[in-house]
Amino acid sequence: MSERNVKLKLAYDGTEFYGWQLQPSHRTVQGLVQGRLREMLGEPVELAGAGRTDAGVHASGQVASFRTESQIPMEAFTKGLNAILPPDVRVLSGEEVPPEFHAQKSALGKAYRYQIFVGEVCPPFQYRYVHHEARPLDAEAMRKGAALLEGEHDFSAFQSTGSDVKTSVRTIHKAEILEAKGLLEFRIEGSGFLRHMVRTAVGTLLEVGRGANPPEWVQEILEGRSRAAAGPTAPAKGLFLVRVDYPPEAGGKA
Amino acid sequence: MSERNVKLKLAYDGTEFYGWQLQPSHRTVQGLVQGRLREMLGEPVELAGAGRTDAGVHASGQVASFRTESQIPMEAFTKGLNAILPPDVRVLSGEEVPPEFHAQKSALGKAYRYQIFVGEVCPPFQYRYVHHEARPLDAEAMRKGAALLEGEHDFSAFQSTGSDVKTSVRTIHKAEILEAKGLLEFRIEGSGFLRHMVRTAVGTLLEVGRGANPPEWVQEILEGRSRAAAGPTAPAKGLFLVRVDYPPEAGGKA
Repeated sequence: MSERNVKLKLAYDGTEFYGWQLQPSHRTVQGLVQGRLREMLGEPVELAGAGRTDAGVHASGQVASFRTESQIPMEAFTKGLNAILPPDVRVLSGEEVPPEFHAQKSALGKAYRYQIFVGEVCPPFQYRYVHHEARPLDAEAMRKGAALLEGEHDFSAFQSTGSDVKTSVRTIHKAEILEAKGLLEFRIEGSGFLRHMVRTAVGTLLEVGRGANPPEWVQEILEGRSRAAAGPTAPAKGLFLVRVDYPPEAGGKA
Repeated sequence: MSERNVKLKLAYDGTEFYGWQLQPSHRTVQGLVQGRLREMLGEPVELAGAGRTDAGVHASGQVASFRTESQIPMEAFTKGLNAILPPDVRVLSGEEVPPEFHAQKSALGKAYRYQIFVGEVCPPFQYRYVHHEARPLDAEAMRKGAALLEGEHDFSAFQSTGSDVKTSVRTIHKAEILEAKGLLEFRIEGSGFLRHMVRTAVGTLLEVGRGANPPEWVQEILEGRSRAAAGPTAPAKGLFLVRVDYPPEAGGKA
């Protein structure tokens, strides 16, 4: 039997997970889904994820891939997997992809969303999915600050200290602030993201929104390349990984 | 010092509560809020709620009232209370009301909403707040069935067995099915509701939506007055108490 390569699109509520990446004696998304896949398929499975979301970070469009000897039809497979997974992680779709596809290595870019609830009292139904700001924010100033993140930059000031990636240069295609349903949303799309980069960008834009610093401060931070200069890392619970993009020949858009 | 009568509007995520009503050794909304009020005000407080929501039922507009000797200004009071309450229960507003106001006894009517997610895979972010139906429902048939609940009827077939209320006659002002954002919503407003009445109505309308019974079946159940004839009690987690109405002289609309 020939080996198949399978791409899964996943959604999860990150509240009760210690993030994506497998950790012994912690509930992680990779650990849970890989474990259920092994039970279901009766073979060792290595599940690769496109993005290593941190503890508390959510995903509405995470992508993962794995190889299997199983010939089970895709629809029955995703149904069966959802039936044995808990409700806080769901398989949105599953498809067979070319052998060279790899959820992380083939990714061309990702899109994240960060939700901020602005108002005195945060509705209990949104609490798990937003960062709460009691006082009004200057959305227009935040919009200007966000726009300065667009383009190719060295984002070393926006990565968590102690990271050891080869290069901290990334290209941001879009960074915008939107207002919808009482929420302020930060949407960012780019070629790749450093550890805590989106949350540090949000922490920085919140300082701008509160009037503590002008929008141009974002430019200064980028140029200074010092993590100490940027705002604090915003809380995990407002962040969603919404999409992972791939070249059409490697399985197209997620 | 004169005694004040205070009306609170509350929202809560019912997932981790054993319902509204105080129960020793269980986490209930009344128990929690009353306990925090006593701590804050340093006096015995009896908190009366408009509706005794069951375990797992949510509220976006529950109303409660209590009497206090405290003269603390209302805004500082609600802020302080929110500061010591957990995020799954929030005080939306607080106001001083005439001495005769009582959250339960003064209520003229209530409005509930029941959320149904229809689709194969229930998004993890909605799971706590919806009932999930994997197969399509006939919304038009449900709408016709719901309309038959409107008006004054003996709802004994829709109350949980063993209830001992004086009369099971209630007036329903509005009972409709709406489709919004991938959700099917049942909205019902009336003079009062028997125990499990909304959830039994939903369980019955789901049978209609699945095509197991025609809309007119709702009429037959009403006339038969037997709980055994109606559909099963739908799960608690889709249900929200959204509003409690009062006469203008007793504090107006919540």
